[in-house]
Amino acid sequence: MTTSLKCGPIADAIGAEIVGDPNTVITSIASIDHAANGAITFITGPKYLAALRSSSASAVIISRQFIDETECTRLIMDNPYLGYARLTRVWAEHNRGVQPATVHNSASIDDAAIIAEGVSIDAHAVIEAGVILGRSAKVGAGVFIGKGCTIGANTVIHPNATLLHGCTVGSDCEIHSGAVIGADGFGFAPSADGWEKIYQLGAVQIGNRVSIGACTTVDRGAIENTVISDGVILDNHIQIAHNVMIGKNTAIAGCTGVAGSTTIGANCRIGGAVSIVGHIKLCDNVMITANSFVNNSVTQPGSYSSGFPLEPSKQWRKNAVRLHKLDELSRQVGKLKS
Amino acid sequence: MTTSLKCGPIADAIGAEIVGDPNTVITSIASIDHAANGAITFITGPKYLAALRSSSASAVIISRQFIDETECTRLIMDNPYLGYARLTRVWAEHNRGVQPATVHNSASIDDAAIIAEGVSIDAHAVIEAGVILGRSAKVGAGVFIGKGCTIGANTVIHPNATLLHGCTVGSDCEIHSGAVIGADGFGFAPSADGWEKIYQLGAVQIGNRVSIGACTTVDRGAIENTVISDGVILDNHIQIAHNVMIGKNTAIAGCTGVAGSTTIGANCRIGGAVSIVGHIKLCDNVMITANSFVNNSVTQPGSYSSGFPLEPSKQWRKNAVRLHKLDELSRQVGKLKS
Amino acid sequence: MTTSLKCGPIADAIGAEIVGDPNTVITSIASIDHAANGAITFITGPKYLAALRSSSASAVIISRQFIDETECTRLIMDNPYLGYARLTRVWAEHNRGVQPATVHNSASIDDAAIIAEGVSIDAHAVIEAGVILGRSAKVGAGVFIGKGCTIGANTVIHPNATLLHGCTVGSDCEIHSGAVIGADGFGFAPSADGWEKIYQLGAVQIGNRVSIGACTTVDRGAIENTVISDGVILDNHIQIAHNVMIGKNTAIAGCTGVAGSTTIGANCRIGGAVSIVGHIKLCDNVMITANSFVNNSVTQPGSYSSGFPLEPSKQWRKNAVRLHKLDELSRQVGKLKS
Repeated sequence: MTTSLKCGPIADAIGAEIVGDPNTVITSIASIDHAANGAITFITGPKYLAALRSSSASAVIISRQFIDETECTRLIMDNPYLGYARLTRVWAEHNRGVQPATVHNSASIDDAAIIAEGVSIDAHAVIEAGVILGRSAKVGAGVFIGKGCTIGANTVIHPNATLLHGCTVGSDCEIHSGAVIGADGFGFAPSADGWEKIYQLGAVQIGNRVSIGACTTVDRGAIENTVISDGVILDNHIQIAHNVMIGKNTAIAGCTGVAGSTTIGANCRIGGAVSIVGHIKLCDNVMITANSFVNNSVTQPGSYSSGFPLEPSKQWRKNAVRLHKLDELSRQVGKLKS
Repeated sequence: MTTSLKCGPIADAIGAEIVGDPNTVITSIASIDHAANGAITFITGPKYLAALRSSSASAVIISRQFIDETECTRLIMDNPYLGYARLTRVWAEHNRGVQPATVHNSASIDDAAIIAEGVSIDAHAVIEAGVILGRSAKVGAGVFIGKGCTIGANTVIHPNATLLHGCTVGSDCEIHSGAVIGADGFGFAPSADGWEKIYQLGAVQIGNRVSIGACTTVDRGAIENTVISDGVILDNHIQIAHNVMIGKNTAIAGCTGVAGSTTIGANCRIGGAVSIVGHIKLCDNVMITANSFVNNSVTQPGSYSSGFPLEPSKQWRKNAVRLHKLDELSRQVGKLKS
Repeated sequence: MTTSLKCGPIADAIGAEIVGDPNTVITSIASIDHAANGAITFITGPKYLAALRSSSASAVIISRQFIDETECTRLIMDNPYLGYARLTRVWAEHNRGVQPATVHNSASIDDAAIIAEGVSIDAHAVIEAGVILGRSAKVGAGVFIGKGCTIGANTVIHPNATLLHGCTVGSDCEIHSGAVIGADGFGFAPSADGWEKIYQLGAVQIGNRVSIGACTTVDRGAIENTVISDGVILDNHIQIAHNVMIGKNTAIAGCTGVAGSTTIGANCRIGGAVSIVGHIKLCDNVMITANSFVNNSVTQPGSYSSGFPLEPSKQWRKNAVRLHKLDELSRQVGKLKS
C-alpha cells in the first residue's frame, strides 16, 4: 500500500485532539511492536509505554494521561482502541477510493425485484422476485437472495453468501462469504416410516448494524422467526438454530453453536467453541468463556465457564479414567469424614 | 401470509378424524402459546392442556384422550406432532403453489448430462458431463454438480451447495445451501518431503429421504465410498469424514464431527457439538447427548454422555486446576481408606 | 472404473522394486480386507500379514522384511504407505486422462487479471482485477477470486470456494469447496454506541503445497497478515482467526478452531474438534489429541490432551454434579490426611 495521510485530517476523522505537528505524514498503521517511522500506532494502557518509548512511530493514538510519555505526534482520545477502529475505517475507505455503483451484466435479477439507488450487484449474483435492496446495498459475486427478502441500506453481502426466501436484514449490516441465512431449521417428527420433515414456515429477522461471519448459518424459524437483534456480531462458523433469539449488541466468537429456541440476552459475550443447548435462556450481560458447555439457563449476569484444561496426554489418561469414578470418590470421602 | 384453508381438507390431508365444524377457517399455524383466533395449533401431552383451555385457537391437532378438553375444532390423531409435521407440508405446498419446472438460461449444463422430466435448474447452476438428474429434481442457483453424479427423483439441492464428481444421492433427499458433498477426505502420508496427498478414489453414496444441513460436509472415501443410509437426517455444520458409514434413520444435530472410517448404526440420535473419533463403531439405537466426546466404540444401545457442565468462572478456575490432580487425589483417598 | 495398469509401470511410477511378474494386471486398489483378484493392496506392518496370506490380491506394496510372506507380485518400498499414496496419484491421473486447459465462456474475468499458460477456469467463476493466476492453476466453477489475489502454479481451487481481495496462495496448493480465505477477522471495538468495526487491513498469506479443507475459513489479518506456511494441511470446517501463524508441515484435523493471534509451530499435529484460545504459542512438534481445549501456551514438544471421556448418561449425571465440588473435595481430603 502506498497510502499517505496527514495526522491533522486523521485526528479530525476519528474525533481526536492533536498534540504535535498536524502535518506529520503517515504511511502505515502498525501495532506498537511493529511501528516504524511513518507509522501511526495506538496504546490502550500503561503496559505499552515502554514499547512506545523505544518505538520510532511517527504518531500514536493515546489517552490524555500519557501525553508526556512520547514526543511523537499524539492524537488524544478517551478510548484509543476506538480511535484505532475509526482509523481503520478511514484507511480502508481511503485505499478503496470511490467505487461507482454497478450492476454486473451477468447477475440474474428478477424483474419483480426492487433495487434502490446506489446498489451494486456483482457477477453471477441471483436476486429473485420480490426482493427489496435498500439504498447503497452491495451484493457480492455469486450471492443468492431468495424470493421476498428485504435488505437494508448500506448492507454488504460478501461473495458466495446465501439468503433464502423471506428473510429480512436491516441496514448497515455485513454478511460474510459462505454464510447461509434462512436454511430450514432441523425439524422432523418421528413416525413409523422414519423422520417426517416439519416444513419451516418462519423466516430470519436480522436487525441493523449486525455482522454475520463467514460460513455462519442462521436457520429460519419453524413457525415464528429466528431473531438477531440490532448490533449483534457473530464470528465465523457459528450455528444459530431455528427460533433462537439474540439480544442487542451481543457478541459470539467462532465455532459456537446455539440449539433451537434458546434465548440469549443483550450485551452478552460468548466465547469461541461454546455449545449452548436448546430451549434455555441466558439473561443480559452474561459472559461465557471459550469452549464451555452451556447446559442450563443462566439467570444472573456474570462470567461462566466449563471445560477440562489441557495437560500432558499421559497425565490426562490417568485423570480421565478417574472422572468415571468421581461420584464414588466423593461418597468415599464423605464416609471418611464421618 | 394470507393463507386460508378449511379444517375439513386439512384433516383429510394429514389423516386426522375431525370433531367440530369442518368449515372452520384457518389462517395461521401457531404453537400453543401464540395461537390466536384463526390459528390451528397442536398439543403433544397433558402439560399443554391449561394453555389450550385459555387459548383462542380455532382448531387443534390432539389425541383422542383429550377430546373433551376444548370446544374448538379438533383434528384427532394418535401422534399430534406427526400431524403438525404433515400440516406444515400442506401449508408450505399451498403457499408455494404449482411451480412449473424451468431451466434457467444462465445455467451451464453439459450436453452429456441426462435430465429427466420435470427437473428445475436455477440460475448459474453448473451440471457437468455424465450427471443424471431424476424426475422432478430441483437444482438451486449456483449449485455445482460434478461429473458423473446421480441425483434421484424429487431431490432438492438448495442454492450454492456443491456436489463433487461421482457422488450418488437417492430420491426425496434435501441438500441445503453451502453443503459440500464429495470433497477429498483428509488423507496424507508422511514423507521426508512433508505430507504426500493420498488421492481419494471413492465417492459419497447417499440413500433416499436423506436431509443434509447447511454448510455440512461429507467427504468422499479413500478407496471405498462414504455411505449415508436411507432416512438419515444431518443438521448444519456437520463434518462426516471419509469412509464413515451411517445407518438408517440416524439423526445428528449441528456442529458434530465424525472422524474417518467410523461406523454409526441405525436409529441413533447424536446431539449437537459431539466429537466422535475415527475407526470406532456405534451400534444401533445409541443416543449421545450434546457436547459429548465419543472416544471409544459403543456396543450397547442406550444413552451416553460426557462433558463438564457450566459454572461461575471463579468456581471453575478452582475446580479445573484440581482436575489435573484427580488421579493423585483418588490415590490419597485409597490410602486413607486402608 | 475400468482402470487397467500393469505392475511394472506402477513400480516405476512409485519408486518401488518389483519381485514377481511385472506384467501382472491391476484393475483396482483395495485395502487388505477388500482386496480381490486383480487388486493391488499394501500392508504397513506385521499385523496385516495374516490377512495378506488369506487374500487373493494380485499385488502388494510391502517392505522388504515381509518379502517371503506372499507369492503375489510384490512392490518393495521402505514406506509402503507412502507407496500407496503415490499409487493413488498415478491411479487418479490415469483415470482423469489429459485434460486440456479451458476457460469457460461464462466465467467473468477482469481484463486486468494476469492468466498464465495452461490455466483452467470453469463456469461462472469470477476473477477480479489484478489477480495473477500461475501456470496450470485450476479455478473451479463458481469460485470467487477478489482483487489483487495471487495464485501459484498448479494450485487447484475447487468449485464454490471464495478468496477475498489481496490474498496470496503459493504453488501446488489445493483449496476445497466452500472454503473462505480472507474474510474479515472478528475485530470490533466496544463504544457507547455498540460495536465499532475494526477494518481488517491485512491479508492471508498461504505458502506452497498447502491443503485447505471444505468449508474451512482463514481470516485476513487486522494489520499484518494471517500466515499459513509451506506444507500445512488443514481438514474441513476449521476456523483460523486473524493473525494466526501456522508453521511448516503442521496438520490440523476437522472442526478445530484457532482464535486470533495464536502462533502454532512447525510439524505439529492437532486433532479434530480442538479449540485453541487466542494470543498463545504452541512450539514445534506438539501433538494435541482430539476434542482438547488448549487454554495456554505449550512450550515443550510432546502430546497433550484434555476432555471428559464418554460414559453412560446416568453415570455422567452423577459424576458431572460432583465436578462442581471438586475443589471442596480436594480440600476435605487434604484435611483428612493431616
